[in-house]
Amino acid sequence: MNILRPSVEKLGAYTVDQDLSVIKLNQNEAPEDVPAEVKEEVFERLRRAGWQRYPAGGPAELEERLSAYTGAPVSGILVGNGSNELIQAIYLAVCAPGDRIVIVRPGFALFKRVAGILSLTADEVPLDRGFVYDADAILERARGARAVVLASPNNPTGTALSVNDIERIVRSFDGLVVIDEAYLEFHGRTVQGLTAECPNLVILRTLSKAWRLAGVRLGYLFGNEALVSGIAKTKLPFTVGTFARTVAEVMLDRREKMESVVRRVIGERTRVYEALTAIPGIAPIPSSANFILFGLENTTAASFQKELKARGVLVRAFDDPALLRHLRVTIGTAAENDVFLKAARDAVAEGRG
Amino acid sequence: MNILRPSVEKLGAYTVDQDLSVIKLNQNEAPEDVPAEVKEEVFERLRRAGWQRYPAGGPAELEERLSAYTGAPVSGILVGNGSNELIQAIYLAVCAPGDRIVIVRPGFALFKRVAGILSLTADEVPLDRGFVYDADAILERARGARAVVLASPNNPTGTALSVNDIERIVRSFDGLVVIDEAYLEFHGRTVQGLTAECPNLVILRTLSKAWRLAGVRLGYLFGNEALVSGIAKTKLPFTVGTFARTVAEVMLDRREKMESVVRRVIGERTRVYEALTAIPGIAPIPSSANFILFGLENTTAASFQKELKARGVLVRAFDDPALLRHLRVTIGTAAENDVFLKAARDAVAEGRG
Repeated sequence: MNILRPSVEKLGAYTVDQDLSVIKLNQNEAPEDVPAEVKEEVFERLRRAGWQRYPAGGPAELEERLSAYTGAPVSGILVGNGSNELIQAIYLAVCAPGDRIVIVRPGFALFKRVAGILSLTADEVPLDRGFVYDADAILERARGARAVVLASPNNPTGTALSVNDIERIVRSFDGLVVIDEAYLEFHGRTVQGLTAECPNLVILRTLSKAWRLAGVRLGYLFGNEALVSGIAKTKLPFTVGTFARTVAEVMLDRREKMESVVRRVIGERTRVYEALTAIPGIAPIPSSANFILFGLENTTAASFQKELKARGVLVRAFDDPALLRHLRVTIGTAAENDVFLKAARDAVAEGRG
Repeated sequence: MNILRPSVEKLGAYTVDQDLSVIKLNQNEAPEDVPAEVKEEVFERLRRAGWQRYPAGGPAELEERLSAYTGAPVSGILVGNGSNELIQAIYLAVCAPGDRIVIVRPGFALFKRVAGILSLTADEVPLDRGFVYDADAILERARGARAVVLASPNNPTGTALSVNDIERIVRSFDGLVVIDEAYLEFHGRTVQGLTAECPNLVILRTLSKAWRLAGVRLGYLFGNEALVSGIAKTKLPFTVGTFARTVAEVMLDRREKMESVVRRVIGERTRVYEALTAIPGIAPIPSSANFILFGLENTTAASFQKELKARGVLVRAFDDPALLRHLRVTIGTAAENDVFLKAARDAVAEGRG
């Protein structure tokens, strides 16, 4: 008997280049580590915590802080080991094998990958020219689907749905609407106000981006309490460890530290965008997130990615056929962005871009 | 439209009493926190790590240490956020919705719960009298199933399969055999030597018990490399954070610290077992793990659990109909075990047990 399922044999591995010897602008990480004082405060708390004990399972101090940040009631909040785990739990709570969900293309790869692994059909609505969302096309395709899952701002395009369009989708569609606001803090416009009146809306968030905690693994979702308690039942227990809970609590108490990093990233995003528009053959897409997707008129993504890596900068390429001539660069520190911009300019000047 | 699946509406929440104001002997945690020097070594490494970076995705230093500990090649090892996540990934890699797996009853609740959430059928083979494994009954029921999933030692019974019986099951059944050795260190007999020649065997382990890291969330599995790389594809990426990797590395470098705790637990297990046999109406099951299941002749589990909690000790009761007159107590420190034994003796002496 073949032990693995044929669909798994065919599935590619999920791999990302994690070479730290170059300037790493390929995973939308924050450009700065958390402050040293935050680390020391975390260590102080962890000296007193019993590491041999299972972490808190239920709503506790972390959920209270997230309640203050989101305005959602504590019992309508669910934390997870990164938001990926919560996407999986949502699918399992809402969809039976064979059910259909609606996503967009290009979009966040995990939405589709997890659907496939769970034997769901992911129906991909293409974004318009310029990677703009088409709310009507999404609503049209949503008929008969169990869920619509959208990131706003979208990854990897950086484009966002308007609050009005999201509200229209949530109110017109009777299935579940998931809005992934992973990049919210760089955008500034949330639909969190809708969760109180819309029982079919779940908002996903993460501390991996603006909050600088990608290494810690902390995602959360919030929405209607009955819905969230259903999702909690399909999530594995105890996935958020004592360390993740502690770090998240300490960081959430220092919102101004998050906001100052976000201000710097947004400032650099404007500068990088303008500098990219000035490079011949490079066409950046306006972004509401901490990265910029840019088109290449004269070369392929794979080729230009290699040129940039040879010049010490790692950016992200995608398998999506719509992105064979696009790369995504994360906004780094001013110095990192300068190296990236010089590398891009040099490659183009040498006829390689 | 009803947003949640009907099967999820019906599913109970997974809850455990985490009251730390009493002596907590209900989650099979280690009786001691990790040594202070381990914590300081972890903090020293984490001061230098970038928390804003995604954790290492692929085989790295942690997998090398686990390779040394298990004898398995690095590429045949997969780490996860606790072994629960790995159980889910195994099911997803091997079973399609509707497929059947074989487990035992009473057994580890998550084996069945995760199967149900993934729309698999969990076929439960009852343990024999005294909660002894029946390898023939398991093999008989395994015919036509995709997988057999067994814990040895078993939770919550503490009983183990013999190495010979496991080998017979692995060699006679052509589907996947998962052996969860979560409590291995308290038992001392592993079947890890079989993974090199048996491509249908996967061994699950955890650092939550003997290694004292329940709060850190670190499980691992190992087996045939092709099989493990298939399982890695259904597991979510980046689930093991920088902290979990670091702590696990530091602890695995101090194997003698683990072994000394295990020796103390095994010594106390013998003492608690003998003391329990001397209490009228209480019948402990011989255990190969860090807990003891005991039967109650004159009262129910729910009632005796309340009596013990009123006397300051938390033990575990189960929904399983076969366990309505059994409780599970984790082996604690000598002082904790004394409090537990006195509470049990007192409750019985007062006619409540």
